[in-house]
Amino acid sequence: MITILPVTGVAEIRPGDDLGRSLEVALRDLGDADERYRLRENDVVVVTQKVVSKAEGRLVAIDPDDPDAHRALARSEAVRILRRRGDLIISETREGWVCAHSGVDVSNVARGYPALLPEDSDRSARRLHHHLSLAFGVHVGVVVSDTFGRPWRRGLTDVAIGVAGIPALHDLRGSTDAEGRELQVTEIAVADELAAAAELAMGKAAGIPAAVVRGFVPLGPPGSARDIVRPPAEDLFR
Amino acid sequence: MITILPVTGVAEIRPGDDLGRSLEVALRDLGDADERYRLRENDVVVVTQKVVSKAEGRLVAIDPDDPDAHRALARSEAVRILRRRGDLIISETREGWVCAHSGVDVSNVARGYPALLPEDSDRSARRLHHHLSLAFGVHVGVVVSDTFGRPWRRGLTDVAIGVAGIPALHDLRGSTDAEGRELQVTEIAVADELAAAAELAMGKAAGIPAAVVRGFVPLGPPGSARDIVRPPAEDLFR
Repeated sequence: MITILPVTGVAEIRPGDDLGRSLEVALRDLGDADERYRLRENDVVVVTQKVVSKAEGRLVAIDPDDPDAHRALARSEAVRILRRRGDLIISETREGWVCAHSGVDVSNVARGYPALLPEDSDRSARRLHHHLSLAFGVHVGVVVSDTFGRPWRRGLTDVAIGVAGIPALHDLRGSTDAEGRELQVTEIAVADELAAAAELAMGKAAGIPAAVVRGFVPLGPPGSARDIVRPPAEDLFR
Repeated sequence: MITILPVTGVAEIRPGDDLGRSLEVALRDLGDADERYRLRENDVVVVTQKVVSKAEGRLVAIDPDDPDAHRALARSEAVRILRRRGDLIISETREGWVCAHSGVDVSNVARGYPALLPEDSDRSARRLHHHLSLAFGVHVGVVVSDTFGRPWRRGLTDVAIGVAGIPALHDLRGSTDAEGRELQVTEIAVADELAAAAELAMGKAAGIPAAVVRGFVPLGPPGSARDIVRPPAEDLFR
């Protein structure tokens, strides 16, 4: 069984804040009222990119009345532009993510201060993993999530851009199905599924910045979100 | 809070079986031992494509020793081939899904009998929605899920190919964030997030064909998985 608990009551995050400490305080307050919020071994805390970027000061001042300022910022964060149509830019970031506007986001941040992606989202995840594991005395996995579109399918879903303490992929090579045949499907992007599952509990409008996923069974050693970046040479759509 | 319960104990499904009835029986047996398995209003039952295809007799006999038979079948199920590399074909199905081998799958089915996608996965979902809602006297959403790859990201995730009784997309146009600004992100593919979340509870190797997701709050009227198919004219990668 999987349980996903939204982490409410996190203080508004500002540049320079200790996000691990803010999450810890919110979880302790929630845990005092409801013991399900006390972190357990192998719980996974999914944290939205937006609060990570805010805490890390990844806010950039732009002229909110300049319609091109957002796009210029997206271009400056890109290592490659894949597609452009009207206002939309699909680009590849330094970390290797392909997404709209290099992940530069102007909602849920102060007007005129869009948030860039963290410089190194795996490092951000590792810091939170260490902080929360130490604070609660249990091994806590961390996923930093962001909301990306995809080709061919309408709508956006949350995916992982930072991972610590859990595998990002489950490698099922050599596993067999119920009738003993080797599985065709060899790698499951469990970190992306954890991010998507957490989004269902957080929603988009309420400003809930994190969720605890309980019951996830990791297969294999911890990895990083970089494991999910498909090398361009393997990629049929780049 | 979201809870995801794996539906174990479903009898092996064979062509012509009444899948709704098989799921109902398994859920009643589970519910007798554990009241959490008694379906509640707005529960979403996520069912894997594989058992839906089996029940609907979407199995095709091929020569298991002919290495090209699988690919020939994938080509015959495609309306368009997008990419081809070695053994891999990325193609578009009649329903509009872009995936490997037109969704033709050779794992977890009898050797030499690959399963095609359901003819109309939304119709399959609607039948299960009606059966389970009637059987349990509550409104039950249904998602038929399949495991797809994606460009740019390694690993596969479960997505929705059939939807009934719930919206496939949450349209957030006009919604505002915590500071009153209109959300940039306008459509969330909640059916895909439900499929991904369910996969975490089912896994790939145990042969668990369904999961119950509880706590999902639908925004807007029920839709269908067709809502998720991005029209080719909107698509920058087709």
